[in-house]
Amino acid sequence: MLQDNRESISKKIGMDFEVVRIGIRDASKPRSLPASMFTQDLQSIVDDPNIDVVLELMGGVDPAGGLVEKALLNNKHVVTANKELIAKHGSRLVHLAKSRGLDLHFEAAVGGGIPLIQPLKHQLAGNSVLKMMGILNGTTNYILTQMQQEGSEFDVALAEAQAKGYAEADPTNDVDGFDTSYKVAILASIAFGRQVPMDGVYREGIRSITKLDIKYADLLGYCIKLLGIVEPTAPDRILARVHPTLIPKAHPLASVLGVYNALWLHGNFVGDVMFSGRGAGSDPTASAVVGDFIDVGRNILGGGAGSAIPYDSGMLTSPISDLKTSYYLRIHVQDRPKVLGVIATEFGNYDVSLAAMEMKTLDAGRGEIVFLTHPVREQSFRDSLVALQNSGTVETVCNWFRVEDSQ
Amino acid sequence: MLQDNRESISKKIGMDFEVVRIGIRDASKPRSLPASMFTQDLQSIVDDPNIDVVLELMGGVDPAGGLVEKALLNNKHVVTANKELIAKHGSRLVHLAKSRGLDLHFEAAVGGGIPLIQPLKHQLAGNSVLKMMGILNGTTNYILTQMQQEGSEFDVALAEAQAKGYAEADPTNDVDGFDTSYKVAILASIAFGRQVPMDGVYREGIRSITKLDIKYADLLGYCIKLLGIVEPTAPDRILARVHPTLIPKAHPLASVLGVYNALWLHGNFVGDVMFSGRGAGSDPTASAVVGDFIDVGRNILGGGAGSAIPYDSGMLTSPISDLKTSYYLRIHVQDRPKVLGVIATEFGNYDVSLAAMEMKTLDAGRGEIVFLTHPVREQSFRDSLVALQNSGTVETVCNWFRVEDSQ
Repeated sequence: MLQDNRESISKKIGMDFEVVRIGIRDASKPRSLPASMFTQDLQSIVDDPNIDVVLELMGGVDPAGGLVEKALLNNKHVVTANKELIAKHGSRLVHLAKSRGLDLHFEAAVGGGIPLIQPLKHQLAGNSVLKMMGILNGTTNYILTQMQQEGSEFDVALAEAQAKGYAEADPTNDVDGFDTSYKVAILASIAFGRQVPMDGVYREGIRSITKLDIKYADLLGYCIKLLGIVEPTAPDRILARVHPTLIPKAHPLASVLGVYNALWLHGNFVGDVMFSGRGAGSDPTASAVVGDFIDVGRNILGGGAGSAIPYDSGMLTSPISDLKTSYYLRIHVQDRPKVLGVIATEFGNYDVSLAAMEMKTLDAGRGEIVFLTHPVREQSFRDSLVALQNSGTVETVCNWFRVEDSQ
Repeated sequence: MLQDNRESISKKIGMDFEVVRIGIRDASKPRSLPASMFTQDLQSIVDDPNIDVVLELMGGVDPAGGLVEKALLNNKHVVTANKELIAKHGSRLVHLAKSRGLDLHFEAAVGGGIPLIQPLKHQLAGNSVLKMMGILNGTTNYILTQMQQEGSEFDVALAEAQAKGYAEADPTNDVDGFDTSYKVAILASIAFGRQVPMDGVYREGIRSITKLDIKYADLLGYCIKLLGIVEPTAPDRILARVHPTLIPKAHPLASVLGVYNALWLHGNFVGDVMFSGRGAGSDPTASAVVGDFIDVGRNILGGGAGSAIPYDSGMLTSPISDLKTSYYLRIHVQDRPKVLGVIATEFGNYDVSLAAMEMKTLDAGRGEIVFLTHPVREQSFRDSLVALQNSGTVETVCNWFRVEDSQ
């Protein structure tokens, strides 16, 4: 991208730039630039006094974190796409950059090419964020879209995503929600001004979703998405979570399909805004990295480098048991008289009230029931499930998911 | 907003701020702040040496333009929501600000609280923009949504919008597309780096749309939106236009309903991105203005003021006759043998080929036909209409609109 759009990028920075050296892992890969530009000695790049800006696109905390820190200590501006590094060490690195009058930008770490971090830091900064919900991982959104549109089971959709190169051979980082949780932590840190500890982000992946659940959700007017959700729960405290979520089909996030990502947020003045686009891939990532690079160039020229307001560590988080939301529940019961009465009584004991229900007969003597509840505290809902299982009425709690009814 | 979120805004600027004086037109209106803060002498504000930043929220070119210019000449940073002023004089004012090391921000001029201008200037700046399409006026989108969902005619939907306060007593600025054309000019100036002259923006409003056209569009898989559309036509030349447009129901802009605004763009690296939210109203406008104000504050503190890259005047534009797109056409014909043959022949003479057709019989001897064409140069399409009317076969050309099939 720096080559293709070189003239317009130079014009937008207000000065020319030169790519000095490119650090690589694998020297045997064919490259489109002269061999003399490449090195496997990454340390030599962050120590090179002729380099003003370092772009870090390795991923992972080690050795990327040490290299970024060294680059800052050597007075180089840094642009990175490294979500895990920023989620875990962003506060410390941003403070280090600020203290040395340097820029540290990481727009590509969340949402690929979609502008999210900087709009939160700047154009939306005057708002108190009341809620954020994001589809922040293209792999899982692709899998869920396939399950919804083709009626595939998870394993089939995952295999297809792997065949198309959308999912890795070991898909854990995506399908178990780790990738989304890093991005949620970064967005929450920016929006609420303190770094969110990773163990404060509740996390569930999408492996447990079946095509049957997707069918029932559809019948009830919902689709199932892996959402990252953040909301304030008290002054200086938030609840940050990643899990499969039922959202109404009319919600704008429900129309975000395939590998697309989106962030929906509600601010106390701006109201609802949504950003969407391609959340991954080399070209969208390049778009974000080069946007950051242009800003660094302008700041070098204009004297505004290091003007970012750093955020401290230590955001307080609420446990998932404090969540108050609606739930989807699918159970199998022995089909005998009064089963619904028993269930209603147990729900009532834990303040769980019902908003919708679907029933069907399975084989002889057994039935499947799907419930949507009204909002209730998660601890109460979980307690009611234990009580149901102990009641002798419910054969199996097959599956349950949280529901977002906010439009 | 500055009062409500004062503490968090001060924290995000990195220093405290004080509202010094508020210029008003009408001294008799009740105000929530002490009377001593208000003045009708606007000149005294831009001349006050104790004021660092001026927020201009008057609208119109005169006297707002003179006041903004004077504020800059007096070394004050300026934040404005004035779309007409920036569309017509943005290049000159941005150059003036830059030459004095000052900030001139105008995020609120387009899309209300949705971050659009700054993401185009920064995070997306490395891209060549290949196409932009926006729903940039909430009043007309509300009217079209009502026509689509309630089956109202334009006059009824307009009256309802006026009753709800979404449309003014004189709705010309909105329904005839002037407001959208200012916003299109600003977005195009930022994205393509030169100020677009207002007479280079083709403009049509929504008064000619009937509920019948909306019904036919629906039947064909489309809805009708007032879009602002910009695309490059040659190096350093663009085609910028505002008109009712048929877009496929599956296009993300088709789901933008009521007073919501949205900008969809395609960049050569980022691919498709879309931004949506409330495009007008005092709270969303405040969100954008305060976001700009926070940036000005940070720049004052961090030394980055005036680092924006100014854009020159004189963008070259292509005439609408050079457009190549698809068309929707509704005509009335005398229902006699070979009418379709005559029409097909005339279309063929002008390279117009057909993609879809709907026909129905009106009263005895007359028929209504709706065509969707394949893409063709607008001049050819218009020539074909003249030929059809001269052929003796077509009784009336009832209505025609441009179609966007790009996903």
